[in-house]
Amino acid sequence: MKLSELANTLELELHGDPSVRVDKIQPISRATKNDLSFIVSARYKKDLIQSSAAAVIVPPSLAEFASGNYLISTNPYASYAKASWLLSPETLPAPGIAESAFIDASAKVDPSTSIGAQASIGANAFIDADVVIGENCVVGANARIGRGSRLFANVTVYHDCILGAQCRVQSGAVIGAEGFGYAFDNVSGDGWQAIHQTGRVVVGNKVHIGANTTIDRGAIDDTVISDGVILDNQIQIAHNVQIGENTAIAGCVGIAGSTKIGANCQIGGACNIVGHLTIVDGVILNATSYVSQSINESGRYGSGMPLQSNTEWKRSFVVLSKLTDLLKRVRALERSKQS
Amino acid sequence: MKLSELANTLELELHGDPSVRVDKIQPISRATKNDLSFIVSARYKKDLIQSSAAAVIVPPSLAEFASGNYLISTNPYASYAKASWLLSPETLPAPGIAESAFIDASAKVDPSTSIGAQASIGANAFIDADVVIGENCVVGANARIGRGSRLFANVTVYHDCILGAQCRVQSGAVIGAEGFGYAFDNVSGDGWQAIHQTGRVVVGNKVHIGANTTIDRGAIDDTVISDGVILDNQIQIAHNVQIGENTAIAGCVGIAGSTKIGANCQIGGACNIVGHLTIVDGVILNATSYVSQSINESGRYGSGMPLQSNTEWKRSFVVLSKLTDLLKRVRALERSKQS
Amino acid sequence: MKLSELANTLELELHGDPSVRVDKIQPISRATKNDLSFIVSARYKKDLIQSSAAAVIVPPSLAEFASGNYLISTNPYASYAKASWLLSPETLPAPGIAESAFIDASAKVDPSTSIGAQASIGANAFIDADVVIGENCVVGANARIGRGSRLFANVTVYHDCILGAQCRVQSGAVIGAEGFGYAFDNVSGDGWQAIHQTGRVVVGNKVHIGANTTIDRGAIDDTVISDGVILDNQIQIAHNVQIGENTAIAGCVGIAGSTKIGANCQIGGACNIVGHLTIVDGVILNATSYVSQSINESGRYGSGMPLQSNTEWKRSFVVLSKLTDLLKRVRALERSKQS
Repeated sequence: MKLSELANTLELELHGDPSVRVDKIQPISRATKNDLSFIVSARYKKDLIQSSAAAVIVPPSLAEFASGNYLISTNPYASYAKASWLLSPETLPAPGIAESAFIDASAKVDPSTSIGAQASIGANAFIDADVVIGENCVVGANARIGRGSRLFANVTVYHDCILGAQCRVQSGAVIGAEGFGYAFDNVSGDGWQAIHQTGRVVVGNKVHIGANTTIDRGAIDDTVISDGVILDNQIQIAHNVQIGENTAIAGCVGIAGSTKIGANCQIGGACNIVGHLTIVDGVILNATSYVSQSINESGRYGSGMPLQSNTEWKRSFVVLSKLTDLLKRVRALERSKQS
Repeated sequence: MKLSELANTLELELHGDPSVRVDKIQPISRATKNDLSFIVSARYKKDLIQSSAAAVIVPPSLAEFASGNYLISTNPYASYAKASWLLSPETLPAPGIAESAFIDASAKVDPSTSIGAQASIGANAFIDADVVIGENCVVGANARIGRGSRLFANVTVYHDCILGAQCRVQSGAVIGAEGFGYAFDNVSGDGWQAIHQTGRVVVGNKVHIGANTTIDRGAIDDTVISDGVILDNQIQIAHNVQIGENTAIAGCVGIAGSTKIGANCQIGGACNIVGHLTIVDGVILNATSYVSQSINESGRYGSGMPLQSNTEWKRSFVVLSKLTDLLKRVRALERSKQS
Repeated sequence: MKLSELANTLELELHGDPSVRVDKIQPISRATKNDLSFIVSARYKKDLIQSSAAAVIVPPSLAEFASGNYLISTNPYASYAKASWLLSPETLPAPGIAESAFIDASAKVDPSTSIGAQASIGANAFIDADVVIGENCVVGANARIGRGSRLFANVTVYHDCILGAQCRVQSGAVIGAEGFGYAFDNVSGDGWQAIHQTGRVVVGNKVHIGANTTIDRGAIDDTVISDGVILDNQIQIAHNVQIGENTAIAGCVGIAGSTKIGANCQIGGACNIVGHLTIVDGVILNATSYVSQSINESGRYGSGMPLQSNTEWKRSFVVLSKLTDLLKRVRALERSKQS
């Protein structure tokens, strides 16, 4: 791809030779003559000065340090993201339905879609234009997959669930399993009685869902994932959770039932959030945060524990087991000082 | 459904018009004229008084506040659970084997079962009456699925594993994968030597297993999940674990090898329990508890950390890194006071 | 199997009757006349003395306490591991491609492989000799599965990813899903822009991967799992992570992007490791450790919290919320003592 073409598509100001060709993207420390690179901050200024990349995407503040060809971007990281698809376009399967796929006679499948081997599309399901359904995916009855969405292999979408347009779902994700809603029947001795989960999962547009992530269907109302949400792998989202627009959630997070998370939040890896809480817009959680109460103010929060050597950790473990005792001793000292 | 019919089936005392029809269940705050609702405590008394529901399931203590039709239940939540299936009956596929399913010639499949598209049933497997096997499920050789159980799409049951009757397994669950048992061969330099996991997973009756939950087969003995156990999504149960009757486990819990968990326990989300422990009956664990020793008394336990603003959390992080130092300083103060 | 044959194959010194037959392995406390057993330490000396096992694998230091037949091993646990496969050989499906499997015309599949029902092998994929691919597995375009590896049912290997020889992958594992790499486009309002993940997952030889474990493909470079690594279930390994030889990782661990973990590490269950860190060789992490900084020295580390009764935990929770306040009070006491 010629640099001028790249600059035009990304709408970036080009300095240098517009006819130079860029083949692939490499980190600034390694980029050589056919590579595009990028820097986001002054931290890499030295690399920029020494770079032999074909071209570098730079923020306006660092343009003066670019020796070769460069493109000016107010958000070089976002420009890099867009360039990554231009220089390495996605390989998409040709439209058409694999011979071994099962399509229920009542399903509506747009002819522009691609349905992979051994996939299964249920009764009255609707698969919109330009959708790609991977091998061995199962789309349940009455489910809807919006225009241009891609499901990689082995994704399960339960009956009645809805995915918007331009979604991207990685393998092993399960959308619409029955929420964990039970009543214990102490009278009849019948044990746990499941509550029929009659809600759906409704996923907006441009939502990305990671591998082996699970999103349960609602009990009565729907579980709702808003437009632009990005979910990493192995996230568990319980029934009736609502997640606001453009919220990003890293891997291994668990969110219990009926919790509402606002827009533009960033939830770090392995956080756990209990049920029936409200988290406002713009909350950032450090990795491994445990959230047991609603969060009413935007901002950054955390609760993770420091790592220690095993010897020191064992001692800390003992102190942590007797924290209230420690507090009492401090109080006693304070009282004796006052008296 | 007529209210009288519902009352009869649920064996509840009906007050009001037996001929009124209820179509669906709604929360008490929203229920209108064709809706059934329920309340479990006095917290919703005001909603009950103002309700325009067709009928409300109420506990005896709140019956006096019901203005319209009502059903008296000593456990309204369990009655709601049962009603949820009566008003929205489960849609089950018709009995029969999908053309694209693979059934080994030696497998025994009851004619009343439904086997979905692309499912695979191994040699000598036994599928009992009224079982529903979803699309793309794999049931291994010699496995047994008990009467009336339902496996949703994409469930894997390994060879030799046994599921009882009336079980319900959500998509992506894996039952019977090889346990994580290895010996490090420091002599030959061959590295980790896997121990052949020759035990099974034996699941009792009325067990519910969530999406992407994994239960490993035993090393020599079996991994055992007793009758009435309910497991949420993304739970990891290692080899040789035993779980007692009616224990409920929330999402993202990890249980390491050979641990025995009693009956009627409630394990909160994201708890982690190390191996070779014993937890007695009736233990309740708060979400994110870390259990590193056996629990010998029933009761409620916890170990989760409080969430703090990032600024305060960073300070706490430093104090937590020096807890034993803090203890020493308190001791020094105590000594100096005494002297 | 005759004891002499077992001793020869395992290269162990046999004491007693070489013609005795052993059928299966049992723990020392239960082993009876046709059973092989083993002990690893003096802790089980009493069981050894009383054992009626056909034969026992013992360390040299305990040989004198063996009353019946015994085999001397400098690593009895590793010898047991190897014996477990000899006495219960793995049941492997016959070579051949299931009729219902889909094999792309351009894929190269060695005739000695076994490809299960409904499996799908993509364009230009290479399946080496003696590989077993389970039912409903999906192997993407250009992927390579090395000699003698086994994928159980429902495993997904994305395009271009490479598995070495003698690997073993449990059901539901996903290798090569797109890493969680995004740039937020604050300029155009387009929200999160995915970065095209053009790297691969490259897995070495003798790597074991547990059920529902996910390993993401790299962004530009590859994600690398070295020879001899063993991974338990439900582990999340993010893009560009590198894991050194023979490192063992227990269930539910999360490792964020670009972190490098050394060789011969042992990561306990449910640990979480943030991104862009380096952990040197030989690090051992207790279960539930949270690693937020690089670890530059081998050794054992931990950060888990002690479990307490709910009453005591609630009090601790309050103290933990005010730890810096507690520190200040101790400082104040120290100052008042000095003055």
